[in-house]
Amino acid sequence: MASLQDIATAASINLLSATGFLMAFAILRLQPFNDRVYFPKWYKKGIRSSPTRSGASASKFVNLDCRTYFTFLNWMPAALRMPEPELIDHAGLDSVAYIRIYLLGLRIFVPLAVMSFAVLVPVNWTGDTLERSKDVNFSDIDKLSVSNVADGSHRLWAHIIMSYVFSFWTFYVLYKEYGLLATMRLDYLASEHRRPDQFTVLVRNIPPDPDESVSEHVQHFFRVNHPDHYLTHQIVYNANNLAALVAEKRNLQNWYTYYQNKYERSSKRPMTKTGFMGLWGNKVDAVDYYTSEIQKLSEEEAAERERVSNDPDSIVPAAFVSFKSRWGAAVCAQTQQNRNPTLWLTEWAPEPRDVYWDNFAIPYFELTIRRLIVAVALFFLTFFFMIPITFVQSLANLEGIQKVFPFLKPLIEVESVKSVLQGFLPGIALKIFLALLPRLLMTMSVLEGYPSLSALDRRSAAKYHMFILVNIFLGSIITGSALQQLKTFLEKPPTEIPETIGEYIPMKANFFITYIMVDGWAGVAAESLRLVPLVLFHLKNAFLVKTEQDRSEAMDPGCIDFPVNEPRIQLYMLLGLVYAPITPLLLPFIIIFLAFAYVVFRNQIINVYDQRYESGAAFWPDVHKRMIISLIISQLLLLGLLSTKGIGKSSFAILPLPVLTIWFYVFCKGRFESAFIKFPLQEAMIKDTLERATEPNFNLKTYLKDAYMHPVFKSTDIEKPDPLVEEEDRPLVATTRIANKQSPSSSSASSTSSRSHT
Amino acid sequence: MASLQDIATAASINLLSATGFLMAFAILRLQPFNDRVYFPKWYKKGIRSSPTRSGASASKFVNLDCRTYFTFLNWMPAALRMPEPELIDHAGLDSVAYIRIYLLGLRIFVPLAVMSFAVLVPVNWTGDTLERSKDVNFSDIDKLSVSNVADGSHRLWAHIIMSYVFSFWTFYVLYKEYGLLATMRLDYLASEHRRPDQFTVLVRNIPPDPDESVSEHVQHFFRVNHPDHYLTHQIVYNANNLAALVAEKRNLQNWYTYYQNKYERSSKRPMTKTGFMGLWGNKVDAVDYYTSEIQKLSEEEAAERERVSNDPDSIVPAAFVSFKSRWGAAVCAQTQQNRNPTLWLTEWAPEPRDVYWDNFAIPYFELTIRRLIVAVALFFLTFFFMIPITFVQSLANLEGIQKVFPFLKPLIEVESVKSVLQGFLPGIALKIFLALLPRLLMTMSVLEGYPSLSALDRRSAAKYHMFILVNIFLGSIITGSALQQLKTFLEKPPTEIPETIGEYIPMKANFFITYIMVDGWAGVAAESLRLVPLVLFHLKNAFLVKTEQDRSEAMDPGCIDFPVNEPRIQLYMLLGLVYAPITPLLLPFIIIFLAFAYVVFRNQIINVYDQRYESGAAFWPDVHKRMIISLIISQLLLLGLLSTKGIGKSSFAILPLPVLTIWFYVFCKGRFESAFIKFPLQEAMIKDTLERATEPNFNLKTYLKDAYMHPVFKSTDIEKPDPLVEEEDRPLVATTRIANKQSPSSSSASSTSSRSHT
Repeated sequence: MASLQDIATAASINLLSATGFLMAFAILRLQPFNDRVYFPKWYKKGIRSSPTRSGASASKFVNLDCRTYFTFLNWMPAALRMPEPELIDHAGLDSVAYIRIYLLGLRIFVPLAVMSFAVLVPVNWTGDTLERSKDVNFSDIDKLSVSNVADGSHRLWAHIIMSYVFSFWTFYVLYKEYGLLATMRLDYLASEHRRPDQFTVLVRNIPPDPDESVSEHVQHFFRVNHPDHYLTHQIVYNANNLAALVAEKRNLQNWYTYYQNKYERSSKRPMTKTGFMGLWGNKVDAVDYYTSEIQKLSEEEAAERERVSNDPDSIVPAAFVSFKSRWGAAVCAQTQQNRNPTLWLTEWAPEPRDVYWDNFAIPYFELTIRRLIVAVALFFLTFFFMIPITFVQSLANLEGIQKVFPFLKPLIEVESVKSVLQGFLPGIALKIFLALLPRLLMTMSVLEGYPSLSALDRRSAAKYHMFILVNIFLGSIITGSALQQLKTFLEKPPTEIPETIGEYIPMKANFFITYIMVDGWAGVAAESLRLVPLVLFHLKNAFLVKTEQDRSEAMDPGCIDFPVNEPRIQLYMLLGLVYAPITPLLLPFIIIFLAFAYVVFRNQIINVYDQRYESGAAFWPDVHKRMIISLIISQLLLLGLLSTKGIGKSSFAILPLPVLTIWFYVFCKGRFESAFIKFPLQEAMIKDTLERATEPNFNLKTYLKDAYMHPVFKSTDIEKPDPLVEEEDRPLVATTRIANKQSPSSSSASSTSSRSHT
Repeated sequence: MASLQDIATAASINLLSATGFLMAFAILRLQPFNDRVYFPKWYKKGIRSSPTRSGASASKFVNLDCRTYFTFLNWMPAALRMPEPELIDHAGLDSVAYIRIYLLGLRIFVPLAVMSFAVLVPVNWTGDTLERSKDVNFSDIDKLSVSNVADGSHRLWAHIIMSYVFSFWTFYVLYKEYGLLATMRLDYLASEHRRPDQFTVLVRNIPPDPDESVSEHVQHFFRVNHPDHYLTHQIVYNANNLAALVAEKRNLQNWYTYYQNKYERSSKRPMTKTGFMGLWGNKVDAVDYYTSEIQKLSEEEAAERERVSNDPDSIVPAAFVSFKSRWGAAVCAQTQQNRNPTLWLTEWAPEPRDVYWDNFAIPYFELTIRRLIVAVALFFLTFFFMIPITFVQSLANLEGIQKVFPFLKPLIEVESVKSVLQGFLPGIALKIFLALLPRLLMTMSVLEGYPSLSALDRRSAAKYHMFILVNIFLGSIITGSALQQLKTFLEKPPTEIPETIGEYIPMKANFFITYIMVDGWAGVAAESLRLVPLVLFHLKNAFLVKTEQDRSEAMDPGCIDFPVNEPRIQLYMLLGLVYAPITPLLLPFIIIFLAFAYVVFRNQIINVYDQRYESGAAFWPDVHKRMIISLIISQLLLLGLLSTKGIGKSSFAILPLPVLTIWFYVFCKGRFESAFIKFPLQEAMIKDTLERATEPNFNLKTYLKDAYMHPVFKSTDIEKPDPLVEEEDRPLVATTRIANKQSPSSSSASSTSSRSHT
């Protein structure tokens, strides 16, 4: 049992380590040679160019201006300064909605913390149960929690009433936020410039026709059934092979550049081996080898390109159908076309860069089977993942390794190697598993057959959320594997489950506070440092970069890792909601995490991340749903805890809360959800009318012609996706602003001052 | 414990009573003076006219043709003879889909019974456990059930395998039937003649506009947002007051006719009292009194009619919006109009006669609150209804009555009255409650705010199904009130609940067999007899009927009581699925019930019922869903039962079944459900094109002008709904058929022979 002092010590240690990360971040980001690691977003937009090209030679690489080091936290206010509308313009609605999750948390938990400390902490503190019980095993932290209130005491009514207040406040904030996000999304869609996906519908499960090609069939069908609105369509090729060839070619080109650079620097022809990864095989001249390999692959690629475009078998029974107006597309996306609802399935086309090209050709029956299998697999993964890991761990001891790989025996018997292995092996299987888990979940989502990256991300997040809920939240409370938990739950009466968990809750506050500090605070600080991209960028810069374009390609701005980050935030939200009426002391730690993460991620989306797609905050209904799930869990656990406190039937006073929460969920779903799924005809009509008035002669057909072409067909070069190209054509708000504000001081070399403003 | 012989005795008694009902039915229906009770459908269609007007005077009332009495079951093959397409034409798709529920049951249970008797009965019979246990308390019935198999025996694998076979067979039949119904519905919609609801969309939650009336607002909104398709609209008046006045006036007119008749027969001026129900108040001349009352009410009605049509406050924020084509209506019904998804809500307009006029003006927030309240109320009604009833019962003893109504004391103390009351009172509260339950559930559904009678019926059926499931099925297995059950369930581990129930299941087979015979067999036979309409018709005929039109009004054809009947069938289905692997002996009883009910209801929909509305089998997804629920219950109970039979983990071999069943449900939902909710654009387009080609000059606007007028505005006379008027204009298939077949023998008086053919 930790005392308040212990917690304070732990907090200061973690604060120090976080501050260390921040210091490192502040110093690294001020160095011009790291500019492309910490400000890639601006390079991608074409607003910023390499500082290495201009200015004094020393300040090209190292920042020598001492004053900038003293104000090392300056980036924080700078990150907060950009107003939200401008931020949406700069980074997209997805990113803004994502950081609003932290804001949502702050809106909920700051008032909750104030109320808890004003009402519940005094009630708990003066409860005196722990002191009277003469149990030395209590601490100040427990004196602040509900454990300090006597069983059967009327003081517990304070907790019941406060849990109502907390829930209603959460309802209020969630409702406001959902409404705001729905408005933001609709405004965003309304304010946007013309985009191909506004006019386009993705049609899947096109039935085969014996007399017509897919393209003719699509054209006839939509000419007949949407006669006034159909404009054109684009068929989808199965270009998976071709895409693989293109990727391989790019890889070979990288090697070629690497050896070419090496040759130029050392002026000695580098050699390589032809086998796997250059590890074995014949020794050949590297530059010549890769030149010929690239040549071979280019021919292969051309042949494959030819085959795909001419072979009718490589056409997938799916198409992107475009309409003359947004109204026509909105109608087609929302209606059923054929009497068989599993054929001619229509839905809004994702943005061109959001399309996941491999998932278009799955028939309905196979799709449902796949989802069944994935659901069952997810269940087993969540509850039984410890079984294979324990098995692997039992193998991964020294004797096991000696048996399987007898030739390693002499190595293992070296004392120093042995001790390292013994400390390292037991945890490694679990750690590898946890690191691979997001990728595994993504693969499962891909199997489920969603046609866009955004949908895949949302589905993966849902899976990860379930895993965290069961294995981290419940797993930490009831120590033991998920499998054991499942057994416990199945063998206990449903009313006793919340009791069992509720009983453990106050004892675990301590653990979770440490968890928030280690995983939350330090994790966010590490995120800002971007250690992996930093190292990778400098490696690439050293070996692969020749031209300015190579350098931009070496930049890895990354993007918000939604399927991993969002479920993690939800865990903190859940902890906050669960502990608000039980151990209010936990709340400040969560608030610090949320505020800190908000600033860091705001900085990241302004300066670093380059989003892969823009879904218009389509994930918000999921965020809302998971908050509701957390709320219900917290209410049930409080109910369970109170029913162990001997106040008899009074604990059932909480029972209406979950019912109300479910009602609230249904209410919000009906009120807001369709803003994220459907597109109202009125909005479409307004935008159509406006556009017809301003640009009566615009040739939409030409505009849409190649919008939904598989990226490998567009060209062999890397090409920026359409929306970005367009964005650059328009005067970007951020650009003007920087230009205005910076005109007196900054023009070329002293990029530091402009940095502190961005 | 009943032996096979006991069951046989009970069966023969019930068969006899059912036969008695059928005899009475056969005799009564052959009497010409009952013709309007047993053949009202034909009168409503105008195909049959009163036999009392033509022919010999004695045979007008009593059938003297002895031969017809010997063939008293002739109506059965007659009822089966009409082919299905003709039946759809004659009675509508709703009725046909309803009797297909029985057929579905037969398709499932006949093969199940054959398989059970072929495989499971021998396995059970040779199990010998009960004989060896020297427990005298067993009977032949138990020897046929799974109780006769030893604990831990490998024979139980037969039951596990058979439960898979049963489930897969049920899947197969359900899938086929769902597909067939979806096709039937789409064909029905496609083959139908022009109907107002094909072009019309119901718009609700029209936001108020400060500058425009509702009508103008609707017109502007749809002119702008559906410019090429909007045709016209009809606003909805709040005419509830007016409807009440009209109803009252009709009631007064009945009394007037009654006294007029009395006067004409006795030539003495009848007197009445002006107070409630004519029981007290001043004595006045009845004919004069009612004449003046009707006069007064007519004036009041005219004033109200004036007020409603002119007062803007009596306009409800809802409207029926009609489009130029089915395509336009289908688009509007399936899309979202406004950015606020709770405003401008559009859905397919129900048929004019299906509209429930009182539920149009409920805002979204109120609607969700109402549904929450109804859901909570339903929960309490289902689980706690015994509390008030027990309370009333405790009051309703003789002492209680004496206390509350002391003036009744002398009456109660008469010995004969006392004994009757003592036998009668305890059950009466429960019986009254159960009789009123369907009406109560309907009121709850009305509160939920559905805008059509068909939707109300579907919702009520869902509520009644839940009530039956908890209180009749579970209540009979675990004797005790639902409240006690709930407590048991909450306090037992979830894995033990199926075990607890499963254990009781084999013992209750006997009870359920009796239940099927008494409630099922006898109930269906009673349904055919139509005792209440029979008595009411003759009473009305004696006192109220003057003209031929009066006589048609006195006819009460009734209709399928879907919200009561369908959940009851589902109970039998559930029993069949639960007992198929446990006590196969129950299956023949269910099969007899289903076959018998099928014939009786087929006769009723051909000759008697006049459906109130036609929803195109929109209830089928509910039927399917409830079958799935029954299937899952049966699988879980079998799992529970097997886990008490000591075969250890082998009982978990059943666990994949519920998962598969849920998958099957999701699969079918995606595959078929939208056929019952949406209307594919392709179908709409085909029909539009066809119609434009055949009737290019049809004036749709005139046709739709008054289609969705509140019935009280149409005229003060009773008016047949539009579709029926139309149907009579077309040559009805049944008519030609009768004319062809009957031409030699029947023309006027001998209506008996034509009856046996209809």
